[in-house]
Amino acid sequence: MMETITKSNQTNITAEPGKMEIIVVKEFDTDRGFVFKAFTDPYLYAQWIGPIGSAIKIEKFEPRDGGSYRFLQKDKNGKVFAFHGVFHEVLFPVRIIRTIEYEKLSTRGHVELDTSKFELLPGNRTRLIIHSVFQSVEDRDRIINSDFNKDMNEKFERLEELISKSITSWDL
Amino acid sequence: MMETITKSNQTNITAEPGKMEIIVVKEFDTDRGFVFKAFTDPYLYAQWIGPIGSAIKIEKFEPRDGGSYRFLQKDKNGKVFAFHGVFHEVLFPVRIIRTIEYEKLSTRGHVELDTSKFELLPGNRTRLIIHSVFQSVEDRDRIINSDFNKDMNEKFERLEELISKSITSWDL
Repeated sequence: MMETITKSNQTNITAEPGKMEIIVVKEFDTDRGFVFKAFTDPYLYAQWIGPIGSAIKIEKFEPRDGGSYRFLQKDKNGKVFAFHGVFHEVLFPVRIIRTIEYEKLSTRGHVELDTSKFELLPGNRTRLIIHSVFQSVEDRDRIINSDFNKDMNEKFERLEELISKSITSWDL
Repeated sequence: MMETITKSNQTNITAEPGKMEIIVVKEFDTDRGFVFKAFTDPYLYAQWIGPIGSAIKIEKFEPRDGGSYRFLQKDKNGKVFAFHGVFHEVLFPVRIIRTIEYEKLSTRGHVELDTSKFELLPGNRTRLIIHSVFQSVEDRDRIINSDFNKDMNEKFERLEELISKSITSWDL
């Protein structure tokens, strides 16, 4: 029964041609306080932010207005990626606005502005809307043409597992 | 003679219809180290960031990667506006990437990502490019339809005055 409900919460990714933005919408079968926590608690965040098979090392994580963060992501082949940014706003349990930069030696200065909104739905459910704005259409397309859809689906699959485990352990 | 050179450095503002961005280009008759300093030294910044006749009060100014800032701007009629944000990157004398939010009680969460680039030109001159990205076309248009062009021109007029005063006092 749980399985059926989970599968109905499909990830909706919108990236219109020629635009500088990506909009990701996903619903979860838990309250927005918990989904928000999964974005702001470094121990929870590390468990789902990478695709399946990847490992995350959080170096810095200050989820508050003006805080900074940096984390490393090691994929299943051992390749390491780094990401960092600043939190412009962390407003529990409603909204997170932050910058994100994927660190690559030759192309620094390409930054994304992410707004994550956590909407309350009836039945203790949550609608997450992640709105990402890029500095150019090219920057946006580079992200979309990587494994964006696959990675996002895998992350959310892991986040749902985390939610379902947490609900189970809470119920025990 | 100085007057003629100054007036030739016109401000070029691009805001294409339907886009989420504004591009401002302006050249200055001084080295980029000084223009960069005018963006990162709070005492200099306060002297030019508001339009003519306005007063600035800097509450917080941490021009470094991960730093925050907040300042108040009082216009000539005594009306006070507040702005705040975070510095994603402050790379002397090349680039500043930061967020900006104009604080209005009813509309929080509307944030702009600004990239300022300071390009070295021959003859000890500087090309400043400010690239602002908004969360929506509506947010961009609201800014453009305010006194954006007039304000920007006035700010740069004040910045040029500051530069010319500084050069004069340096030369003394």
